[in-house]
Amino acid sequence: MGKMKAQRFWGKEDLRYEDIDEPQCSAGKIKIKPAWCGICGTDLHEYMGGPNLCPEKEPHPITGEKVPLTFGHEFSGRIEEIGEKVSDKFKVGDRVVVQPIIYDGECGSCTEGLINCCDKNGFVGLSGWGGGLADHIVVPEYAVFKVPDNVPLDVAALTEPLAVGWHAVNLSPYKDGDSVLILGGGPIGLAVLQALRARGCKQIIVSEISATRKKFAKEFGAHVIIDPSKEDIVARCRELCDDKGVHVAFDAAGVQMAMEQAVRCVRARGTFVNIAIWEKQAKINTNDFNFRERHYVGVATYMGGDFDEVLAALSDGRLDMSRKMITKKIELNEVLEEGFKTLINDRDNQVKILVKSSGEM
Amino acid sequence: MGKMKAQRFWGKEDLRYEDIDEPQCSAGKIKIKPAWCGICGTDLHEYMGGPNLCPEKEPHPITGEKVPLTFGHEFSGRIEEIGEKVSDKFKVGDRVVVQPIIYDGECGSCTEGLINCCDKNGFVGLSGWGGGLADHIVVPEYAVFKVPDNVPLDVAALTEPLAVGWHAVNLSPYKDGDSVLILGGGPIGLAVLQALRARGCKQIIVSEISATRKKFAKEFGAHVIIDPSKEDIVARCRELCDDKGVHVAFDAAGVQMAMEQAVRCVRARGTFVNIAIWEKQAKINTNDFNFRERHYVGVATYMGGDFDEVLAALSDGRLDMSRKMITKKIELNEVLEEGFKTLINDRDNQVKILVKSSGEM
Ligand SMILES: [Zn+2]
Ligand SMILES: [Zn+2]
Repeated sequence: MGKMKAQRFWGKEDLRYEDIDEPQCSAGKIKIKPAWCGICGTDLHEYMGGPNLCPEKEPHPITGEKVPLTFGHEFSGRIEEIGEKVSDKFKVGDRVVVQPIIYDGECGSCTEGLINCCDKNGFVGLSGWGGGLADHIVVPEYAVFKVPDNVPLDVAALTEPLAVGWHAVNLSPYKDGDSVLILGGGPIGLAVLQALRARGCKQIIVSEISATRKKFAKEFGAHVIIDPSKEDIVARCRELCDDKGVHVAFDAAGVQMAMEQAVRCVRARGTFVNIAIWEKQAKINTNDFNFRERHYVGVATYMGGDFDEVLAALSDGRLDMSRKMITKKIELNEVLEEGFKTLINDRDNQVKILVKSSGEM
Repeated sequence: MGKMKAQRFWGKEDLRYEDIDEPQCSAGKIKIKPAWCGICGTDLHEYMGGPNLCPEKEPHPITGEKVPLTFGHEFSGRIEEIGEKVSDKFKVGDRVVVQPIIYDGECGSCTEGLINCCDKNGFVGLSGWGGGLADHIVVPEYAVFKVPDNVPLDVAALTEPLAVGWHAVNLSPYKDGDSVLILGGGPIGLAVLQALRARGCKQIIVSEISATRKKFAKEFGAHVIIDPSKEDIVARCRELCDDKGVHVAFDAAGVQMAMEQAVRCVRARGTFVNIAIWEKQAKINTNDFNFRERHYVGVATYMGGDFDEVLAALSDGRLDMSRKMITKKIELNEVLEEGFKTLINDRDNQVKILVKSSGEM
């Protein structure tokens, strides 16, 4: 068995660039050579304060693995080997991305098709089965999606974060003509922004305090940017939206105070969509929901058609700003110093840092 | 100007049976002689810990009134006088109920027809314009609904609490075939239960710890009753609902621990409907919503067709259990001792106490 390089997470503040066994392809599986892999906020959270999502004491119920685990769940690559029983829609050499959801296929959620809500849910690159921050990876066929010819593989590596925003908009009641508030101009907020632009939304308000992130939001097409530390966001949203407030708010920030305020930016019967993963229990003022009959929706990653829809929108130009999300490209051996530490120390100036594996476009 | 009797709320633990000026009818208004008036949990909350909803320091922006205020917002009666400009659909002698919502008709919510979400929203019997616990009351025409001939006026006095449950079901995504959990077997919980029975729901689970309230829930047609102090409610709901959980949960209890548990009784993409008014900020564990993409909806009283729908269902027999909600009838001068104090000290044995005004059926 050959060896390969991988970035493995061992525990809090312990990420190692190591030689590990190269994974072997088997029945129903596809072996991929990663091209580009993004670093995600979740990776950072695990590194700085984890293991949280990553199994530490008990192995993950589906993968049977626990730390150390290879990181990387936002990646593109090329198929290098195909296991037996894989359908003939895939062939060696195909350019692909991986939808990293791990699910059991048999719990109540899975039998309803809601694989992202699986009771045993996990993620490639966080719960086992390797990750994109390595020379090779083997995943089940169901996780693999073909990339349209005109989409370069660095942009394709953004499919996963873009799908998070795309799915949130899909799950929300957003419809043509609605006005929207996005909390936070980081990668997820910008993904929501792009998904809304792709749908032709005419009133996108972004709430953000960082000057650099405000600039990103503007470049990505936000119609109005509000600094909640300087302006009364509730009053501004009402003023901008017929004295009613926005139809839908998307929380991509996960900050208690901002969330409480933002709920009141939503009109009666409007919806507050939470995409942020909170480390602690968040408090909501239930009366703010009752007195205006507001709705709250939690969203979990993506599922079903989201990856295909994002790839199609990358191909036909509806998501034409995506490449701007890539603010830095680094080598696989630089993940800690040039990746994680840059995101920790220079967070506001970065959207997505891509790690080069094969580097193929 | 003549005098009349009224039960007026002066402040915490201060309810007085007094002689006050009889209200005068005027243009666009209807004068009603109350027949029966229910005592509501909201009245009790105001009495025990208020004024909360009742304006105390500043007068209500629409009624211009503050405490002392006449109580009573769940009442039926007969029209005794009609002001100028009232449409000819009403005539003296009509048997009616009052939808007690006070709204300004011009805020963002009102212009969308969501009068129950009005920025200045108030209630007859809590915010001014008199109340049902008096010999006479004058209200705007919009608040008056005719009672079908075959519905007695004591049962008609239940229209308001029944409309709360009816509206919550209307606003929820409940559909035929869905399974439902109701938290709490008090008046609101039983109103939700009856609204669901009226729609033919086949799986209604009620969570309740009081033995008497369990008995009420059973009599009113709950299919399963779970005592969350003795059973694992999450496990039981999953077991009863294809290992998935209920489609919709209605919180008519407003208890932090119970609410947290109940959220996990809801299947992926299911909905948690909050009807309870919380005195303090409730905490929700947002991750419980995200990881299963659950929805949360706050509901506020009733609006639009709710009163007409409840009156029609009382008339055609779909709400045939309603009279059982009336557990005691008392006189107008007995409200404090036989009404409020009974509800405070013997809460579990009571559903609705009706106060007799004219006593006409
Ligand atoms: Zn599953
Ligand atoms: Zn209004």
